[in-house]
Amino acid sequence: MADTLTLHEDPRSGNCYKIKLTAALLGQKLNLREYDILKGETRTPDFLATVNSNGRIPVLQIDDVTGTRFLPESNAACWYLAEGSALIPRDRFTQADMLRWMFFEQYNHEPNVATLRFWLRFVGEANLSEQQRAQVLAKRIAGADALALMDRHLTGQEWMVGDGVTLADIALFPYTHVAEEGGFGLSDYPAICEWIERVKALPKFIPMG
Amino acid sequence: MADTLTLHEDPRSGNCYKIKLTAALLGQKLNLREYDILKGETRTPDFLATVNSNGRIPVLQIDDVTGTRFLPESNAACWYLAEGSALIPRDRFTQADMLRWMFFEQYNHEPNVATLRFWLRFVGEANLSEQQRAQVLAKRIAGADALALMDRHLTGQEWMVGDGVTLADIALFPYTHVAEEGGFGLSDYPAICEWIERVKALPKFIPMG
Repeated sequence: MADTLTLHEDPRSGNCYKIKLTAALLGQKLNLREYDILKGETRTPDFLATVNSNGRIPVLQIDDVTGTRFLPESNAACWYLAEGSALIPRDRFTQADMLRWMFFEQYNHEPNVATLRFWLRFVGEANLSEQQRAQVLAKRIAGADALALMDRHLTGQEWMVGDGVTLADIALFPYTHVAEEGGFGLSDYPAICEWIERVKALPKFIPMG
Repeated sequence: MADTLTLHEDPRSGNCYKIKLTAALLGQKLNLREYDILKGETRTPDFLATVNSNGRIPVLQIDDVTGTRFLPESNAACWYLAEGSALIPRDRFTQADMLRWMFFEQYNHEPNVATLRFWLRFVGEANLSEQQRAQVLAKRIAGADALALMDRHLTGQEWMVGDGVTLADIALFPYTHVAEEGGFGLSDYPAICEWIERVKALPKFIPMG
């Protein structure tokens, strides 16, 4: 593969970690370009014009003979990296079921489990706007629901889909394993705790950060 | 294909319409099983135990020689139906870029554009909880941002990715074309308006409902 891969990222972001973990498990080289999202570094006119008009990271930059292309959305970048590998099951149902959990992650899990971690650990409770403060309880409940659903699903099976690690596990691992930073008690979810150890024991695993 | 496909749906849901539109464009037969989400029909013990423990529709039910399987998440169900068809581009970057817009739809578009339509048209402004009311302005701004991003993207290109209709268009069409029911003025987005007409003119197109 002659592509040069560059990840535009903030090391504190679980969404960025997904892509780094995918690349690590596959033994792919990823150049890193760091931004501080708390300082608005992904909202500059230059970033918006060239990297991502949505003003968000991660973005995977792909340089090859055809030129430079930018791919936003963490789960789409993981898909690009993992194409053709065992991290994407080939069976038609299992592949769609893997995507099901990746959409679940972005809709039910990330906006609650990750957002509370961001607000409580990085923004700070005292600095939340009134509107953010009004959403904490709803996000607490919805995040606990998402974790409980995962825990029930992982009871009696080792991986989210099929019989090995896939992008469904990689998408859900980052914000789940640091959920306590957002005030979620992981001891309530024993099957998740076992699954976290299983992911950490994967060959070529790298920690977040 | 010997599968029997059944969609568990509410006809008012754009997420369900995505799947029906995908099946229609591909000429696939889909049996329909209707629920009224406003009456809690997807939160019954039976639904949670057999169809979807997340208590949400759409769910695609697949019956084949191996048994009965359930696939939640609208975009995953579209992926299952469209597997191997021209609605999923084969080029590696274009395929990942299509998924990028499908994740964008679930993260940036649906929770704002679709939720405001649901609240204003089906729940009714007078029946919103205080917490929902407190979120209307933020969802109005984020939804307008998502539509503006789509509009800029569609300026100068006919389809969301590549040079033909894909699941990225099908995922974004349902809630975009009825965005005015949530109070978004589509005349602000001329490229979106042209794209809507392009989707409606597709052979085998079916309307929502």
